[in-house]
Amino acid sequence: MQLADRLKRLGTETAFAVSVQAARWASQGNKVYPFHLGDMNISTPANVVQAASKAIADGRTGYSPAAGIATLREALAHDVSHRRGVIYGPENVSIQPGGKPLISKFISAVMNSGDEVLYPNPGYPIYESQIEFQGGVAVPYGYVQTDEGFAIDLDKLHDSITDKTRILIYNNYQNPISAESTEDEMKSLAELALKCDLWVLSDEAYFEIRYGGEPHSIVALPGMMERTVILYTFSKKFAMTGWRLGAGVGPEKVINVITKLNTNHESCSNHFIQWAMVEGIDGDQSGPKRILEILKDRRNAAVDGLNAIYGIDIALPNSTFYLFPKVTEIMERKGFTEIGELQTEALHKTGISFCTRNHFGRPLPDERDYYIRFAYSGIDVEDIVQGLGRLKEYFET
Amino acid sequence: MQLADRLKRLGTETAFAVSVQAARWASQGNKVYPFHLGDMNISTPANVVQAASKAIADGRTGYSPAAGIATLREALAHDVSHRRGVIYGPENVSIQPGGKPLISKFISAVMNSGDEVLYPNPGYPIYESQIEFQGGVAVPYGYVQTDEGFAIDLDKLHDSITDKTRILIYNNYQNPISAESTEDEMKSLAELALKCDLWVLSDEAYFEIRYGGEPHSIVALPGMMERTVILYTFSKKFAMTGWRLGAGVGPEKVINVITKLNTNHESCSNHFIQWAMVEGIDGDQSGPKRILEILKDRRNAAVDGLNAIYGIDIALPNSTFYLFPKVTEIMERKGFTEIGELQTEALHKTGISFCTRNHFGRPLPDERDYYIRFAYSGIDVEDIVQGLGRLKEYFET
Repeated sequence: MQLADRLKRLGTETAFAVSVQAARWASQGNKVYPFHLGDMNISTPANVVQAASKAIADGRTGYSPAAGIATLREALAHDVSHRRGVIYGPENVSIQPGGKPLISKFISAVMNSGDEVLYPNPGYPIYESQIEFQGGVAVPYGYVQTDEGFAIDLDKLHDSITDKTRILIYNNYQNPISAESTEDEMKSLAELALKCDLWVLSDEAYFEIRYGGEPHSIVALPGMMERTVILYTFSKKFAMTGWRLGAGVGPEKVINVITKLNTNHESCSNHFIQWAMVEGIDGDQSGPKRILEILKDRRNAAVDGLNAIYGIDIALPNSTFYLFPKVTEIMERKGFTEIGELQTEALHKTGISFCTRNHFGRPLPDERDYYIRFAYSGIDVEDIVQGLGRLKEYFET
Repeated sequence: MQLADRLKRLGTETAFAVSVQAARWASQGNKVYPFHLGDMNISTPANVVQAASKAIADGRTGYSPAAGIATLREALAHDVSHRRGVIYGPENVSIQPGGKPLISKFISAVMNSGDEVLYPNPGYPIYESQIEFQGGVAVPYGYVQTDEGFAIDLDKLHDSITDKTRILIYNNYQNPISAESTEDEMKSLAELALKCDLWVLSDEAYFEIRYGGEPHSIVALPGMMERTVILYTFSKKFAMTGWRLGAGVGPEKVINVITKLNTNHESCSNHFIQWAMVEGIDGDQSGPKRILEILKDRRNAAVDGLNAIYGIDIALPNSTFYLFPKVTEIMERKGFTEIGELQTEALHKTGISFCTRNHFGRPLPDERDYYIRFAYSGIDVEDIVQGLGRLKEYFET
């Protein structure tokens, strides 16, 4: 009665342990400021909710096709094309129960055992987990801090290419560090993908979470549509993380495989929610606009609150709902050598709950600095201001 | 830009091709009698729908825990325990986006590459697909026809055991043949699992679809709870196939792994539907009762309609919503040697759409007879009577 050997290679999201710690602290009667988890305390737009109810009443309660309903595939293909300046059709779309399922399915579809996969680190921890679980070699690439935020360490990325490199995972508008590629950086990555004949997973979960400027996708660069699958999610734009709906958008031959994996894994995504998202895409857009306004106010409050702390200096990001301040100076001030010590003491002394760099992939050997991650998607401005005030007191002493 | 080698081992549900064929025939203005797909044209109980709306209004739109909300895990553990005469706690339950996801996750959790897995054939085609896709050896076991329906061919099952046999997949109340184990048959399987130290996946998707007598689960037999994971689904009992909610119920150490796979694959199942199913389990039960009454009337009409055809003789099954008549005599009468010929000609001559034995796993080498499968979950009594009347005319000439 043994479990399977492959489980030794299975990772997870250790950030959930921070949630458990925070919940335990709160249950003891303490005020907690939840900066740890990328969930949203904002309501889903009313027109989406109404469309879901109508779809149930209309009997959309049976199976949908494995790839999703034709109407949603069409609407999403049009929307994704319009926003990225490319042309996709419904045959390029496979609806998923969330954005995340695309990570494991994309890897199943294009990676062979022993293939090397370039992935961002710090980054979403499921990349590393799924590459290794499915028998690949996870090759991390990192970031360097700049005046505007963070840039991919392109030199090191180039140095880590071998003849076994097959896939580039790219998460522009990045979780956890909210990095945003310059035009040059994105071009360099595209050139690399073409030169080395790589598949690209473009995780665009935060593409629509923009507080200024237009978003850009690598699929708009020459030769990239043919080799890239976009991870799309409805979760953030419509504040519906718990509804679980997303999609893969890419070349038909990969999308067909991903749909075959849908048939194997879960049959299809929820039927009536797919109809609700047709309304989400084609209907009144005041909901997503309201969500962005709320998030922008929080971003401003959180950046101000953090920059008011002696020893913290962060740029104002234009996307995502994450902030990734360097706390090396604060670690020295406190005399800590493990970032987990700062995280736990901060919770117990101030009620502030946050994740650390260690929740986003195995740290790289040459890292010298300490970073922590704040999410402002699940906490109101008042609590942001109050909480970061308490954190300032704690961090500065 | 190659796809992954492992895709050569990936199967699918070929029954969807029958749906496409039926839809094409209908779109040409023909009346189609949809006996092919196990979907349901029955509405989800109103109290469940209302509970889902209330949960959205209550803000249950963010992530749920990966294993599911505690209230539903508790309610389902109690319900599953009560109905099977055993004792499970919430720690034994991992909520899934449907029953199907448990198949791939269970196999990931306990099967090593090269392990042999016993699975029913004819049976749900995803067993075969996922065993082989994940590197196992799919070892089929078959059924023999009896006066009461079908019995597992236990002699052949025993003969196929080797020192590499690790898992038994068991689907009592079986799709597609609606076989139901006698007490002795179930005991034999349990003894075999104990003797050979096998893990058991007990696919109980149709456990609650019973028209007479009480259902029995193999987990109630001595020593079986420790080695068995139950595939549970809400889809059939509550006529909510397109809502996508199910669960795995089993030993905590396997359930914990399955939950870790949830975190990797889809984060969690839809949050507000989990609250709706708390109402489904603990609330008014007139909905599931109505669904069973509708299905029972259809079963009676379908069995009568099929038995009225010269050359068909089926027993009255007490469970599932499938019928699996032998059509060897009709094939001879028609002069066909491929079951697909009968299926296609029946559609075009009568509008009756059904699946064949070939949609439920690769046929075994020693099969002599031809079988087809009727599902009566998506067709009303009036159309069952009318359609089978037309089929009688076609089959008898």
